[in-house]
This record gives sequence, structure tokens and C-alpha cells, in this order.
Amino acid sequence: MGLWGKRRDMVVHEEDPYNAEPPRQVLAQAPCTPLDAFYVRSHGPVPRIDLDTWRLRVDGLVERPAAWSPAQLRDRFEPAEVTATLQCAGNRRAELMAVRDIPGEAPWGPGAISTARWGGVRLRDVLDAAGIGEGAAHVAFAATDVSQRARPAQPFGGSVPLAKALSEEVLLAWEMNGEPLPAVHGAPVRVVVPGWIGARSVKWLHRISVQADPSDNYFQATAYRMLPADTDLDQAGPGAGISLGPVPLNCDFLSPDAGTRCPSGHAEVAGYAFAGYGGGVARVDVSADGGGTWVQAELDPQVSPWSWRMWRVTLELPAGEHELLARAWDFGGATQPESPRSLWNPQGYGNNAWARLRVSCP
Amino acid sequence: MGLWGKRRDMVVHEEDPYNAEPPRQVLAQAPCTPLDAFYVRSHGPVPRIDLDTWRLRVDGLVERPAAWSPAQLRDRFEPAEVTATLQCAGNRRAELMAVRDIPGEAPWGPGAISTARWGGVRLRDVLDAAGIGEGAAHVAFAATDVSQRARPAQPFGGSVPLAKALSEEVLLAWEMNGEPLPAVHGAPVRVVVPGWIGARSVKWLHRISVQADPSDNYFQATAYRMLPADTDLDQAGPGAGISLGPVPLNCDFLSPDAGTRCPSGHAEVAGYAFAGYGGGVARVDVSADGGGTWVQAELDPQVSPWSWRMWRVTLELPAGEHELLARAWDFGGATQPESPRSLWNPQGYGNNAWARLRVSCP
Repeated sequence: MGLWGKRRDMVVHEEDPYNAEPPRQVLAQAPCTPLDAFYVRSHGPVPRIDLDTWRLRVDGLVERPAAWSPAQLRDRFEPAEVTATLQCAGNRRAELMAVRDIPGEAPWGPGAISTARWGGVRLRDVLDAAGIGEGAAHVAFAATDVSQRARPAQPFGGSVPLAKALSEEVLLAWEMNGEPLPAVHGAPVRVVVPGWIGARSVKWLHRISVQADPSDNYFQATAYRMLPADTDLDQAGPGAGISLGPVPLNCDFLSPDAGTRCPSGHAEVAGYAFAGYGGGVARVDVSADGGGTWVQAELDPQVSPWSWRMWRVTLELPAGEHELLARAWDFGGATQPESPRSLWNPQGYGNNAWARLRVSCP
Repeated sequence: MGLWGKRRDMVVHEEDPYNAEPPRQVLAQAPCTPLDAFYVRSHGPVPRIDLDTWRLRVDGLVERPAAWSPAQLRDRFEPAEVTATLQCAGNRRAELMAVRDIPGEAPWGPGAISTARWGGVRLRDVLDAAGIGEGAAHVAFAATDVSQRARPAQPFGGSVPLAKALSEEVLLAWEMNGEPLPAVHGAPVRVVVPGWIGARSVKWLHRISVQADPSDNYFQATAYRMLPADTDLDQAGPGAGISLGPVPLNCDFLSPDAGTRCPSGHAEVAGYAFAGYGGGVARVDVSADGGGTWVQAELDPQVSPWSWRMWRVTLELPAGEHELLARAWDFGGATQPESPRSLWNPQGYGNNAWARLRVSCP
């Protein structure tokens, strides 16, 4: 077994803080990702938390500030579950880095995305117990892990608008696929914000603040923002660019592996597609001729509105090298942009260009 | 004045049924489109309606079926207003037709989109009065105008999922920019479904049915669907493809006009951007070098979450022919696909490729 209970074949981008994604084919095996394969994005070392003294504070623009122990959270609020895909904003960054380098960021492949059945309680029930006060517009999450990458060094944090925080799919979670939440995934309690970039699903949560404004934490105000390609990062201050939230429509290949040889010309192709705004995925197209013609993949069931949708298709390919393309369509009839070249941005977020995979048929 | 109280310079695609869009520069003049310029998409002749006997029926899976006169609707329910952009699913179809012909459909330019301040009552208040019954999942709208284009000929109709029907922005409207709703726009009462393709904002409404399934009307089950490019329309039955709903992120140029000469090399460029899923538009980029570099346009205020956002930028251009590009970004950091070629579909819907405009600087 590898670090933190993960498979030995994880692609480890960094050991401390631990950042790792599973190989493509592992993700292809099930709609819910096994705990030993679920990707990990960390900004600081896994914190040591004393469960005897740990309390979740709820404060800010609330009528009844509170502090809950794990047992109190379990006893007081109705249990809730959601099957949700988390995707790192940096998923598929490697393709952007192939366009132009992105110093200081990890070259995530297609595996900075995974799906679990999360269990805990609804954030809105905890907020209702506190009583939302006048002027509330955002809900901020403060974590325990300290990131030396932030400027200045600080604990991880972030926020979501109040309307999203009050949506029934948003949980405070301590179970993952029916198991206790592993330490590396945020135990004792993390936020799960389905449909939004993973960074908003704050791990090792210890404080929830209801606020008039978004969090001023580095990871909300400065990182995880879509900046124009010509932005000078040394000059861009907090608040520049678009604060990332809902995950744009995306898809990628999971099987076969890149560079696979398909001797018979018969390729069983599979992958995932995901739309973070809750409508689900309506269609996936695959092309073996550069987008001249497309075939529609067969879609597995949409397990929940907040989950990816697995797809598969069998292609008969002539001898030679092929670049396969894939693109998803959402329930509004929108599809993905073509090229990572036109999506390049200085922090390497949000690559949702058509997926590309090279295979050879000798 | 032209037909139906419209400007004489409308681009009329068809006189009966009346289908017309305003010239680009007219749309550029104000965030709310004047009534004499608002685009019109009709599927049959404007019906003659006897206001003395007209009633709006509410039936299907409801506890208390009802029939409301115009005066009763006004008296019984709280007034509501929303500033919302309507966009025809065929907006910018001309660019798809330049890729490959689309027989039997109008070559809409960039003007099958307009914005108004709509006044009436909330659909959800009317549904609440009827009492939503068991098994309800969709709300169907039946209109009075009969379309000979439908197979078989039938009155126009459509439906939206119950969750959208119950959203506070969805109105039964009889006012447009503070004026009585004009006949050509659906008097006495139309639906306004902000963010969704115009076809769901059914005009000349006379019946609302709460149902378990979507409407089986031709314009819901067969037309207004995103079909794969290789679909044989003669073979595609009802239910094929993706039923269109929320309008994909889109933008286009409104000024200067296509082919404009900018003698000084100084081009004042303006346009609209629109995202139908309620988050608004976060950024608009304009390029004069084929997408190699982009400048950010200045954005006018987002008047409502359901309205387009006007943008403007001044470019200094060298002598020669130029193709300007524009693309919008939404609040999730997603942007538009590049080319209409990859979006072509047999009914010509949903073109949201980067906008293109040719100008020359002698």
C-alpha cells in the first residue's frame, strides 16, 4: 500500500503535502471510486486533530453562534447522503502545460477527479440551527491545515455564496462510500460542495462563518481564479479574475491507456463526463477522424445529478496511428471548447477542451 | 412603420408567419430592447382572441383545476416583474448554414435575441393556487396559434420541468417594458421562462397542464432538439436528441456592422453576451489576431441574472482586413467553443461559437 492508504500505482505529484491521482484505468472500474484510488489534493500537511477537544464553530452573521462536537453533530441533525463527483480545478492541467509552462503547479492528468457516496448532515440544517442573520450572502469555511504555499502562509479556506450553501446537496461529511472519512480526505469533518471545484469542499473543517462577503483566504481571493492569459501573477492582487465555482462541462478517456496498441483494430473505449451545474450529461461523442465525424457513446446511468457519467464505445480502427477525440454535451445542448491552446491561463485551471487520446493499430 | 408595429429596417425572414430580427446596431442602443425592435419568432399566424371569453385553464395533476379571466389573474395574484433576455434557439443559425445548408429553416443572424422588462404574475403563484398533485414533474403550455409547419399541423406548445416552473423568475406576462404585451408577442398572456430558449416562453397561452411527462407537442418532442450531425431527419422520431432548455453561453458583435470600414484604424466595438443558466457573464475577450492575444472588454452592469450583458472595447487596428473574434466567460470560468463547424446540427440550433466580424481599415 502507498502513502495514506492509497494504491501503490497512484501517480504521486508531491509527497508532502500529498498530491496524487489514480491511473486512468483504475477510475474506469466503477462509478464510485474506491477509497484507495480517490485523488488527493492537499495544500499543507495532514493536520493532527484531537477529537476530544475538536469542535465545529458556527459564527459570523448568525443569531445563535454554536460549537458542535462530532457526537453532537450526529445526534442533533438528520443524516444525509449524496453521490457526488469532486474535480480539482487543476484536472487536465498537463495539457495546458504542453501549450506553455505553468511554473509551480502540478501537471495533473485526467485523474484529478473521483466520485464517492458522501455521508453526514446537510450544511443547511446546521445553518438553520444557527439562524441566518441580516446581510448574510456567503458562507466561509476555515480549515486546520496550514499551507506554506499561500502568500502569506495560512490555513486553507474558502467560501460559497449563501444560495449554494443552503442547497440540499451540500453536506458536512464524515463518511465516504460508507466508511469513516480517511484522514487524508479531511477527517473528522469536511465540506462537500457537489458540482463545484474541489477546493470549495474544504477538508479538516473547524469553523463556518456566515458573512456579507466571500472569504478573504488566499485560496479564495488569489488562487483558484480564472485569469486572462496575459496576467502578470506578480502584479495580480486578491480579487483579480473569475472566482471559480461550478465545474465547466468536461470529459476524458479512461480506457484504453494513452499509447495503447490495438492489434485487431478493435478498440473498447471508455471514459467519464461531468457537468458541475447539476443538469447532468446528455451525450458524449467520439471521433477517430479529427472531428470530421462523430459516433455517440453509450452512457451509463446518471447516478445522481452531481455525479459524473461513465460512457463507452467500440471503435473499429484501420492500421496506423490514431488520435481519438471525445466531447460531452449537457442538457442545454452545449458542448466543450476544442483546444487547450485557447484555454491556457496562468494558474492552469479549468481545462475542459475536447479530450484527446493516441492509440496505434499495427 | 413595418408589420406588427416593428421598425421598417427589421430583417424579415418571413412575413406570415412573421419572423424578423432587428439590425445589429439597433440592439446595441439599450440594454432593454424597444418594442418596435424586439425580434419575433412565430410558428403560425397571430391568432384572433376574444378577450371577453378568453380564459386561462390550469389542469392536469392539480388539486383544484381553474380557469382565469385576465381580470381575475390581475386581481388574485401579486404583480411580478423580471428583466429577461429571450433568445431563439436558432439565433446565429446563418453561420451554421455557411458550413452546410439547413433546408426549411430561417437564416437568423445575431439578432434573434432581445431583452425586455416583463410584467405579470409568477407562474408558481398560479400553480400554488391550483395545488400541485402527486406525480407532477413537468408543466406544459398550450398556445392558440396553429402551425402548418408542425407534423401534423397543430397549435404551438411546449413544457418545462416542474422545478423550473416553480422558480421565482418564471412569469405569466402581459406587460413588456411597461406597455401592454403586443399582439405579435403573445397577448393577452404569454409565458416568460428566463434563461431558456425562446420557444419555451409560449405566446398566446390558453392552457397550463401539470404532467408526469414533458409535452408531446411537436415543438417539444420533435423540433427544438439538438440532434447529432449525421441524423436523418426523416427517420428521427419524437424524443430523439437533447430537448433544448437553458441557453448555452453566447455572445456576438452588435457594432460596428459587418464589413464596416474604419478609416482611422480606431474601432469602437460593442456587443452582447448571455448565459441562460442564471449565473451571468463574468468576462468578454476580443481578439484581432485570430485568438493569439485577447483584450478584455468593458462590461456594462448585469441588469438581472436573466439578462444579457452589454460590452464594449476600443481597438487600434493597422491598415488591412481584419477578422475580429469575441468570446464570453461565465462565472464558473467556462468559455465558448471555437467554431460553428463543430456545432453544425440538422435543425441548426444552439450556435454559440466564438463571434466573428470582418472590418477593414484602409
